[in-house]
Amino acid sequence: MTDAQLLAACAALPRVGHLPPGPRNTITDVAGLRVGHCTVAQGDLQTGVTVVVPPVANPFLHKLPAGLAVINGFGKSAGLVQLAELGQIETPIALTNTFGVPAVVQAQIAECIAANPECGRSLPTVNALVLECNDGYLSDIQRMAVTADHYREAVESASYSVAQGAVGAGRGMSCFQLKGGIGTASRVVEMADCHYTVGALVQANMGKLADLRWGGVPVGAALQQRLHAKEQQAALGDGVDKGSIIMLLATDAPLDSRQLTRMARRAAAGLANTGSCYGHGSGDIALAFSCAYTQPADVNEPMPAMPMLHETLLDPLFRAASDAVEQAIYHALWHAQMVQGRDGHRRWGWQDLWKD
Amino acid sequence: MTDAQLLAACAALPRVGHLPPGPRNTITDVAGLRVGHCTVAQGDLQTGVTVVVPPVANPFLHKLPAGLAVINGFGKSAGLVQLAELGQIETPIALTNTFGVPAVVQAQIAECIAANPECGRSLPTVNALVLECNDGYLSDIQRMAVTADHYREAVESASYSVAQGAVGAGRGMSCFQLKGGIGTASRVVEMADCHYTVGALVQANMGKLADLRWGGVPVGAALQQRLHAKEQQAALGDGVDKGSIIMLLATDAPLDSRQLTRMARRAAAGLANTGSCYGHGSGDIALAFSCAYTQPADVNEPMPAMPMLHETLLDPLFRAASDAVEQAIYHALWHAQMVQGRDGHRRWGWQDLWKD
Amino acid sequence: MTDAQLLAACAALPRVGHLPPGPRNTITDVAGLRVGHCTVAQGDLQTGVTVVVPPVANPFLHKLPAGLAVINGFGKSAGLVQLAELGQIETPIALTNTFGVPAVVQAQIAECIAANPECGRSLPTVNALVLECNDGYLSDIQRMAVTADHYREAVESASYSVAQGAVGAGRGMSCFQLKGGIGTASRVVEMADCHYTVGALVQANMGKLADLRWGGVPVGAALQQRLHAKEQQAALGDGVDKGSIIMLLATDAPLDSRQLTRMARRAAAGLANTGSCYGHGSGDIALAFSCAYTQPADVNEPMPAMPMLHETLLDPLFRAASDAVEQAIYHALWHAQMVQGRDGHRRWGWQDLWKD
Amino acid sequence: MTDAQLLAACAALPRVGHLPPGPRNTITDVAGLRVGHCTVAQGDLQTGVTVVVPPVANPFLHKLPAGLAVINGFGKSAGLVQLAELGQIETPIALTNTFGVPAVVQAQIAECIAANPECGRSLPTVNALVLECNDGYLSDIQRMAVTADHYREAVESASYSVAQGAVGAGRGMSCFQLKGGIGTASRVVEMADCHYTVGALVQANMGKLADLRWGGVPVGAALQQRLHAKEQQAALGDGVDKGSIIMLLATDAPLDSRQLTRMARRAAAGLANTGSCYGHGSGDIALAFSCAYTQPADVNEPMPAMPMLHETLLDPLFRAASDAVEQAIYHALWHAQMVQGRDGHRRWGWQDLWKD
Repeated sequence: MTDAQLLAACAALPRVGHLPPGPRNTITDVAGLRVGHCTVAQGDLQTGVTVVVPPVANPFLHKLPAGLAVINGFGKSAGLVQLAELGQIETPIALTNTFGVPAVVQAQIAECIAANPECGRSLPTVNALVLECNDGYLSDIQRMAVTADHYREAVESASYSVAQGAVGAGRGMSCFQLKGGIGTASRVVEMADCHYTVGALVQANMGKLADLRWGGVPVGAALQQRLHAKEQQAALGDGVDKGSIIMLLATDAPLDSRQLTRMARRAAAGLANTGSCYGHGSGDIALAFSCAYTQPADVNEPMPAMPMLHETLLDPLFRAASDAVEQAIYHALWHAQMVQGRDGHRRWGWQDLWKD
Repeated sequence: MTDAQLLAACAALPRVGHLPPGPRNTITDVAGLRVGHCTVAQGDLQTGVTVVVPPVANPFLHKLPAGLAVINGFGKSAGLVQLAELGQIETPIALTNTFGVPAVVQAQIAECIAANPECGRSLPTVNALVLECNDGYLSDIQRMAVTADHYREAVESASYSVAQGAVGAGRGMSCFQLKGGIGTASRVVEMADCHYTVGALVQANMGKLADLRWGGVPVGAALQQRLHAKEQQAALGDGVDKGSIIMLLATDAPLDSRQLTRMARRAAAGLANTGSCYGHGSGDIALAFSCAYTQPADVNEPMPAMPMLHETLLDPLFRAASDAVEQAIYHALWHAQMVQGRDGHRRWGWQDLWKD
Repeated sequence: MTDAQLLAACAALPRVGHLPPGPRNTITDVAGLRVGHCTVAQGDLQTGVTVVVPPVANPFLHKLPAGLAVINGFGKSAGLVQLAELGQIETPIALTNTFGVPAVVQAQIAECIAANPECGRSLPTVNALVLECNDGYLSDIQRMAVTADHYREAVESASYSVAQGAVGAGRGMSCFQLKGGIGTASRVVEMADCHYTVGALVQANMGKLADLRWGGVPVGAALQQRLHAKEQQAALGDGVDKGSIIMLLATDAPLDSRQLTRMARRAAAGLANTGSCYGHGSGDIALAFSCAYTQPADVNEPMPAMPMLHETLLDPLFRAASDAVEQAIYHALWHAQMVQGRDGHRRWGWQDLWKD
Repeated sequence: MTDAQLLAACAALPRVGHLPPGPRNTITDVAGLRVGHCTVAQGDLQTGVTVVVPPVANPFLHKLPAGLAVINGFGKSAGLVQLAELGQIETPIALTNTFGVPAVVQAQIAECIAANPECGRSLPTVNALVLECNDGYLSDIQRMAVTADHYREAVESASYSVAQGAVGAGRGMSCFQLKGGIGTASRVVEMADCHYTVGALVQANMGKLADLRWGGVPVGAALQQRLHAKEQQAALGDGVDKGSIIMLLATDAPLDSRQLTRMARRAAAGLANTGSCYGHGSGDIALAFSCAYTQPADVNEPMPAMPMLHETLLDPLFRAASDAVEQAIYHALWHAQMVQGRDGHRRWGWQDLWKD
């Protein structure tokens, strides 16, 4: 591949698959979902929090059905064991850096107690849900700089418009040895008499550059040369895939927890298409949830009586999940700009590579 | 069952099974293991931290093989996803209350960074391992009173002699609507030409009194009457099993992670024998680890070349695991004294029930 | 324990727990369920087939929700992988001996093709569901004597009245080194304004006599002495738990597959109460299904729109599941009469032990 | 994509990834492994058996460590539950059609009894291992034509040279609505002072043509047009992914069962790269085993005392697994020639498409 061919292949954002995106091409195309960021960008600290806020006033009282896929379990996310058992989400979904998890768990506990004063007393304790990747290359993770305030700011800022790239929990992320971060996308599936949306949001922090495929084109080796011309090899790290990726999938299709678990597993296909094969040191976690109905905490409230989708109708939703995850990873790379952080470490942004 | 028969049945500590205990009948019969507590007992705060400290100077550098059984996943323990993937423990094992988990995770991260300054930088992040039950009936869990100092104190106090009952992370625990807490026991298994020890330590916080069996005798209903004579019914809670139990199993037998996973699953049998059938709201988690060898973090150090135990020799170890867990639960009940805590709530200790 | 005390303890069938049984105290108390046996009892061949027939004309077209718990996976049952993925049953549930599984799978395939001529063509292949234990001690399992005809006979003979003990797939079973076999029981749970039935049927082939508890009383050691007085030690086998137990749970409560999976896991508690701790060589498999609704194979038929039971209402159903399994194991022992089979091997029936 | 471009893209066999293949580029590059086929090609019957024979005289006595990944569990393979529990293989690995599984299970039982007369008596029963896909489009699967003889023939014909395409268990397979079948490939990984081989063999029967990517190039839509020009649309089926793929991975690296499980999961990446996202109706099963050591059945034989590979060295093996699976799928398509079978159904071979 010549440099000109490489440039051509990389100059355009790939458009994954045949399914159309939703109007925003973000996870917030699932009606009512909002996303918020709080970014910390101060010298050696390049980190933050991102939240996906479900369209429910009090998710502790009205829980969302959910499913989980641990594609590679080298990770420290909080809340996954209970999610797997009960098939439910009962808080906003928070993303942050690995060592920031406990502060955000505390913030979610406090938030839940504020809204539900009997939480942990006559009501059960809340299952905080905080997922993570390690941003220690760009940020001084050892300072545990993420606080409850960052979580609250992220929640308060949540909106339908989603900033992407080096923002929020994506601020310090590295992806294929380039600048990674937050990416999002959506796909719409037509059924006989209705349509459903599947949205993805990723915290992309995985991969070795040599493995990267950009819309199917194996640009990794050529990109590696280009990057080496701009950056000292030492600065790129050892090229071992010790990142992680968190992949969130939301839908408005009426699926139960088992079906959502199946959908979550399809994130593995989208991830593989970018060139990853789930590195040993990568915490590759996918989580899918539905906003089509909620389940009441109070036994006296009626349970949902909505028919679930027939199993044979899942295939286009699986494709939508895979495509939206792959697209979201490209979005994360495309939008992330160069960040310089801890000890002068820096990661090149995708588009920075093509500037003179 | 008459009151006299009940008294007779309950006046003695059951001795579970045919296998002999180790010299201390505690988890520290597994050579080198130590246990430490830090107890918080101040009015509305009745809580604490318990740690099991493996016989390794720096477990982040020399990890212990481990396996996990999620018997009922209504729980918020930290570190289980990575443990399931890699089959390793790389920190002391900490127990505390549900909302105390994040503070203890932070303490373990700090402890690991102090010993391994490259943790989260050139070395991976550490997988903090903190298990929990909800002590919200006796303690004001909403205050999140457990701190990193409590964890450090527990580690510093670790010794071969293990206090049981309402101490450390057991301080605020309820078990079968009585006072629960920390219990420990051990069993020794003779093989052809050697013997192995299996030790258990539980944080017992589960069960409805009506279900309790004391060494096989169904004393629950009779005990319920006796307790009602001493305590108002309202004070006993609703009798719904929303507790949890953490069951740690240690051994000096050379087992790999898969075999330890199998051993951990046998904790379910010991637990069932006390009358529990793993209540919906109970986080029933078992974790087994071996101290027979370690696995180096550094790829340049040699990997262990020790033969594992033949699979057909596991049966007596499974029995030891089940018996030690059951015995440890009886020990927790037997040793726990009455605690009065939040809002005047109190739990009767086993032996308090027999005082005039 | 004196012989007189032992006799007293063993002379009565234990009544497990506080919940009432259904009218028959069999799995067929779940309305519409039927059970059939085909017994092979000819010299060295002591084996057979047992079927549980769901109350659905064509389960391939209208599937039942189901969940699975592999308590110890040393087993060769057919159909479990797909059941775990889709959470459904689409055939009668068959039990037989280990080497009889393929013949019964073929019989179920043929049965499904006969009823659904497009099975494996325009319709998917059918997921035969055949569970098994090894009856090789009493029966010449190597002859693979079970045939498709035996399966068909069992289905044709299915009725609401369930023979127990050394019948059908229970014919050659050993349990706690005594005669085992088929046992069944049920429990009824009262809810606010309705009641639900949980039925169990077991193929009991596990356990070492030394471990046996009879309604909580550890009668194993004493029974061992009694048995040795009647039988040569060599004839009792090596006392290694290499049996297996299949535990089927049926209910009329509206539960989804995830909830049924949780219910199936409670079979482990009932099993533990009889003294087993899930031996290494034992295939201990539990399967729970609901008859409250079906799921159509045809995407054009409406999906069920029935509300599932609220999760906090599961506890009494979990107890019912555990108690019914334990009760069913006692029934299997109680009803099984001595069988003599391969090479003169024989197993004493429970009640035979007390005859002069 | 013009037809000329399409032709160019499809005219060459893609070479997946950067790792070199072994000398044969087949699974038999793992020393000692052999592969055998028995093909049934008679009118409406287009089916067969393929076996992978481990380099062990009697695998029931000397078992191979193994791991399993159920990527999508819509399948009827035999032997997976016990493989997951014990992490071992104790027979040759057989592939056949879905309804042929029971006959091959019987053949493996008979083979094991012949070699081990105490199998199912004083020795445990054998865990037959038979994996499958549905070839009902091309073959009259309802006739259950596969017999024990076919299995034996396949074993007897096993050699280091592996025929690919529409042979053995691949005879009736469809893949991306074209002719599928058996494919195999290998990759070699250099370590510091040694090298390891990873071999893959697939039974490829999955996918919709529209999704196909050929070495990263999305040729599906264009191929669909070309195919429609040659074949009536009706003949291509409904394009629903109800196939299945079995992916076997072998290595000479010293890995334990947990590590092999991790390797098996990477088959999902290779599969995704061909365009599949694991269709609802597809049984996508991967199984990895090591030939580096064996585990004795006899407790009196010594257990292996070989050091396992350090976990951080797994990444290149994961890549090799993913690449070898992807390559093997291309080989299956590349080598498979047109087959006409049941009711005149036929599938076009890859190279048939380019003939005039």
